[in-house]
Amino acid sequence: MKLNIALLPGDGIGPEVTAQAVKVLNAIATEFDHIFNFKRGLVGGAAIKKTGSPLPDETIKIAKEADAILFGAIGERKYDLDPNAKIRPEQGLLGIRKLLDLYGNIRPIIAYDDLLNKSSLKKRQIKDTNFVIYRELTSGIYFGDKTLSEDGNTASDICKYSRFEIERVAHMAFKAAQSRKRKLTLVDKANVLESSRLWRRVVQELAPKYPNVKVEYLYIDNATMQLIINPRQFDVILTENMFGDILSEEASVIVGSIGLLASASIGDKHAMFEPIHGAYTKAINKGIANPIASILSAAMLLDHFGLDDEAALVRKGVDKSIKLQITTPDLNTKYDNISTSKVGDFIEDFINNPEETNLN
Amino acid sequence: MKLNIALLPGDGIGPEVTAQAVKVLNAIATEFDHIFNFKRGLVGGAAIKKTGSPLPDETIKIAKEADAILFGAIGERKYDLDPNAKIRPEQGLLGIRKLLDLYGNIRPIIAYDDLLNKSSLKKRQIKDTNFVIYRELTSGIYFGDKTLSEDGNTASDICKYSRFEIERVAHMAFKAAQSRKRKLTLVDKANVLESSRLWRRVVQELAPKYPNVKVEYLYIDNATMQLIINPRQFDVILTENMFGDILSEEASVIVGSIGLLASASIGDKHAMFEPIHGAYTKAINKGIANPIASILSAAMLLDHFGLDDEAALVRKGVDKSIKLQITTPDLNTKYDNISTSKVGDFIEDFINNPEETNLN
Ligand SMILES: CC(C)[C@H](C(=O)O)[C@@H](O)C(=O)O
Ligand SMILES: CC(C)[C@H](C(=O)O)[C@@H](O)C(=O)O
Repeated sequence: MKLNIALLPGDGIGPEVTAQAVKVLNAIATEFDHIFNFKRGLVGGAAIKKTGSPLPDETIKIAKEADAILFGAIGERKYDLDPNAKIRPEQGLLGIRKLLDLYGNIRPIIAYDDLLNKSSLKKRQIKDTNFVIYRELTSGIYFGDKTLSEDGNTASDICKYSRFEIERVAHMAFKAAQSRKRKLTLVDKANVLESSRLWRRVVQELAPKYPNVKVEYLYIDNATMQLIINPRQFDVILTENMFGDILSEEASVIVGSIGLLASASIGDKHAMFEPIHGAYTKAINKGIANPIASILSAAMLLDHFGLDDEAALVRKGVDKSIKLQITTPDLNTKYDNISTSKVGDFIEDFINNPEETNLN
Repeated sequence: MKLNIALLPGDGIGPEVTAQAVKVLNAIATEFDHIFNFKRGLVGGAAIKKTGSPLPDETIKIAKEADAILFGAIGERKYDLDPNAKIRPEQGLLGIRKLLDLYGNIRPIIAYDDLLNKSSLKKRQIKDTNFVIYRELTSGIYFGDKTLSEDGNTASDICKYSRFEIERVAHMAFKAAQSRKRKLTLVDKANVLESSRLWRRVVQELAPKYPNVKVEYLYIDNATMQLIINPRQFDVILTENMFGDILSEEASVIVGSIGLLASASIGDKHAMFEPIHGAYTKAINKGIANPIASILSAAMLLDHFGLDDEAALVRKGVDKSIKLQITTPDLNTKYDNISTSKVGDFIEDFINNPEETNLN
């Protein structure tokens, strides 16, 4: 298979971790006789620095023409601390999501047996946790009209949803539930928000089309508690944009490190693959950034094109790196100098020689 | 001191738990020679059933005339499952908050040494956690204009904040930080929301007025993770309405049960005291509802009127009930039939005879 992949490393640790994902994808291409072409684009703070825009036209072109996009991370401390900045790195990421209509963001949360000790939660609390969050990604309060009054004294954001926007991601989530444990939990705040009531209504209307899927409803406040006290109750969580952002980052505590969580952002024409973690600017160029989230995002890219054996091999490499503690310091209690690229090298080697790779 | 207290038990377990708080307040009145008069009002689903309105005029009058309000819980399963209902229990609670301008919602999160085992989190993770959430309570997306298009296909909610609304609760939070560990963490989503950028700007502007308070900023997604992996980092968390709702319910996992968390909702003229937990309708009349959140809310009421010794005595009673496991099943691993009212009785007895009370 020939794939043109847009590579948008972005800010912070983005370039370091995507470099490892590229390494791994190249190893897969060699092993399985595929051709993966990478084309690099600027986005976020890095793009502002060079072009003045967080999402240059050239990047949009690269992203639109590619078969898939591999995205790094976004954000810079400078902008975090400056609420007055009109041009912001995040506009690059949000712009791509919107322009490519990547409405379904899929975030799997799986507790690795070998990492149960790393979690802040008790082992028995999280063992066997395996669920997936379907987060609506192109609407809601992220994209509704924003206002700032002229005197700067009043600001607003609209959270707006249409039935169509809810239905398409809900269908995705219901289908996923059908091929999993057949349970879907809608998370909203329908006791307060009109938009949440629309979500609840639409999901109630779609539910009969998926009679073998059990549907439950949780308020977001309760959901953040349930996610910790009983994470095994979940199979597929469906939710709107902001609540999905919150729940998925919170869920990282189950897995033991935000550096493990991958995601796929899927539209009808385009698909992007990105870690859940942010730019983590404090870690830049220290070799401590965990590349696994980016590598697992690459595995989701392979899934997307039906390259099941390839994706499985990548995941096996990740499992092995975790088992042998060839991991960055966020996970490692055994070795203290395994760097970002060392983890990538190990998984690359594993793909080249699945039978032989061991501690090296 | 003479206090007229409006008693609004509301729905679900509200009546059961507030009955225990009243028991405790009556014991305090006797012991310390105060006069506490209670006047009961209907609110929520209970009020809809009897009057058609979740917040009858009579209740508004009782609440406005009182020196303080003791609130139970709100919500009914029937409405949770019916997104089309126009009249909803929650409107009662939200109506009171708004009409009485109770803009500062104070939610303390304290890990009891005797309950460290009850948490889903590891002991060493949570020991000595002690922070307080200041949640803005009368604005934001809860109260912004809501729309539902005529064809029912589009719905929206506005999150709107004014500088004034942010400043008044921020001052409250800064002052609290000054008398605590002198750290304030603003939680927002300033990388995406215009309203969050206003929050960040206003807090940055106020900060120099409190030079001894260290100010930090966290995005809400990151905050839900930090709350679990490092809860001891927090002293005072300041945040907007929706994020405060989410964070405070999540924080219950630190303490071991949502049935322990109390709150005070403070305005310039009125004050209301209410548990963080909801109506928990599944538990109605089973005697399993934990009354401690309501009893600790009563302690916050006593604080509010400067009745420090009284509040301290109530808290000592609660501590003792926890130590001796005179607690409801959510906390109890020793006895299996300690009911809601038994917990209230124990704390009442303790107040009457602080020296003598023991297992009885
Ligand atoms: C960087 C930020 C805009 C983004 C979001 O809020 O969606 C990130 O937190 C994520 O979850 O992908
Ligand atoms: C019942 C509900 C409207 C309420 C809220 O969301 O504020 C509750 O969850 C709370 O935290 O007091």
